[in-house]
Amino acid sequence: VTTNRIDALTEGLLKAEPVSVARLISWAENRDPRIEEVLRRVYPRTGQAYRLGITGPPGGGKSTLIAKLAVTFRDRGERVAVVAVDPTSPFSGGALLGDRYRMLDLVADPGIFIRSMATRGSQGGLASATVDALDLLDAAGFTMVLVETVGVGQVELDIAETSDTVVVVLVPESGDSIQAMKAGLMEIADLFVVNKADREGADRLAQALESMLDLHARGDRPRPEVLTAAAAKGAGIEEIADAATRHRRGLEAAGDLERRRRRTMKQRLLGEARRALVARFEGGDGEALEELLDRVARRETTPHDAAREMMAAIEGRGTPPARKD
Amino acid sequence: VTTNRIDALTEGLLKAEPVSVARLISWAENRDPRIEEVLRRVYPRTGQAYRLGITGPPGGGKSTLIAKLAVTFRDRGERVAVVAVDPTSPFSGGALLGDRYRMLDLVADPGIFIRSMATRGSQGGLASATVDALDLLDAAGFTMVLVETVGVGQVELDIAETSDTVVVVLVPESGDSIQAMKAGLMEIADLFVVNKADREGADRLAQALESMLDLHARGDRPRPEVLTAAAAKGAGIEEIADAATRHRRGLEAAGDLERRRRRTMKQRLLGEARRALVARFEGGDGEALEELLDRVARRETTPHDAAREMMAAIEGRGTPPARKD
Repeated sequence: VTTNRIDALTEGLLKAEPVSVARLISWAENRDPRIEEVLRRVYPRTGQAYRLGITGPPGGGKSTLIAKLAVTFRDRGERVAVVAVDPTSPFSGGALLGDRYRMLDLVADPGIFIRSMATRGSQGGLASATVDALDLLDAAGFTMVLVETVGVGQVELDIAETSDTVVVVLVPESGDSIQAMKAGLMEIADLFVVNKADREGADRLAQALESMLDLHARGDRPRPEVLTAAAAKGAGIEEIADAATRHRRGLEAAGDLERRRRRTMKQRLLGEARRALVARFEGGDGEALEELLDRVARRETTPHDAAREMMAAIEGRGTPPARKD
Repeated sequence: VTTNRIDALTEGLLKAEPVSVARLISWAENRDPRIEEVLRRVYPRTGQAYRLGITGPPGGGKSTLIAKLAVTFRDRGERVAVVAVDPTSPFSGGALLGDRYRMLDLVADPGIFIRSMATRGSQGGLASATVDALDLLDAAGFTMVLVETVGVGQVELDIAETSDTVVVVLVPESGDSIQAMKAGLMEIADLFVVNKADREGADRLAQALESMLDLHARGDRPRPEVLTAAAAKGAGIEEIADAATRHRRGLEAAGDLERRRRRTMKQRLLGEARRALVARFEGGDGEALEELLDRVARRETTPHDAAREMMAAIEGRGTPPARKD
């Protein structure tokens, strides 16, 4: 029976049936063990989707911009998925369907799939669930996946480790560029968008960004472009899609896309293994790490021996005898 | 013979003999396995030293400030150790002994011990070596340990995870406060010092710091004090020592010192275990992780199964058979 369910949903996924896709993403969110079997079956189909990460401080109009970008890429022949990893996003919680975003037409198109990831109660599983969701969408044949996150550090997902191209969206408000630096967005941006550019200060922010890029030139990758847009009015959207495509072509031409994805996968594997490690000591039977910390605090063991005990427990060797003087 | 050597050095350490202390810190730096036995013997004596971290961008006069602070704390009856984890520090490489820093008197005092940690070729071991060195100095009876690092991210040591109190030293130069934010120093500072305060712009920087602290008030700990100093002229040193002592008393009174040290130890243990994990896959026999990445890239296995293989290898279970559909 379980196998039949997996069969049916996997088949639905490969046909990009929204109900199957949505259900399997929920499995990923809930860490349902069956998701691993699904991924085992569909993983060979992955690797075709381009992952465009869009991030920036809240209030920057990211969701509106993403909705317009989705339509633009759709018009260019892509099959588009949007994944919002942002508790403040209108894609979360249904506001998306409201008139305010006028995206009903967007939702009605089977070539566009929209999904928000639950960030509450994810207990360290959000990043895993999201990358699994991206693999599922990839296998389902979506060729362009837009991933929305709030600024670095506010959710546990590292957008730079999830995306092929990272777009940082800022607005011309006091201190926004400083916020961006503080949040580490300068380091990860492949492309800057000054949104709400019809407001006062947009050119000043764009210039400030260019100055910062002058100061912090990086030899290991192309200098990010700085664009302006007024997404709510539809201004500048085509140019953003063009710039993202240019960045993609540049990566592909230089062989950097494969290298970037390999680096990302390495971090993903080490991250998974580390999570398994921490889970052994923080989750489940639980108290083991606290007990170790108590014993170190009482000076009954040294930090080295405590770490060795942790590894020994993982390696199934039990507690090694303390060496005598 | 080995035991005799350990015996002799341990005995020397507990008497704070500089030669023994220095040799054992070198063992820690070189990851000599004998250091673990030494720590096993002396760890019960630790927990008395206060760890004052001093960090900030290069060129801020940290080393001069630390030298003066060391003398001030010495005058107040502390036994003082200085540990420099900064390749640009004059404590590294002998410039310390030059006239420029006029610290010969400081070196001649047996109640002051100075050491720089080698940051080159440490291959992930610098943080471990440094915390071991701090334990050794603690066991040797030093009551105040000043740890100097350059800004966050430039060396792998996380000063906030190593210190009881973190002092961030800045100078009144254009963009220094922005640099500090960018490097994450705003988050970790317990105390700010605007050094070289006889220069133009010191008050402006101090005000900018106060404004930032207004904007980013944190409920979980006291608001950092902002002090000015001109360390090379000896101005403001007593006030820094006073403020650091106030911070220490505040932590102790609230029971926060023990909580902070426990949190730090938890990160240390997880860090040690993670390093052991990565070492299994990146060091030694080596190629295992790259091979896994190749197989994932060829879609021969899924990221989940690859991570499971990593854990299985660590747990000594060998490669689990791939489940069939």
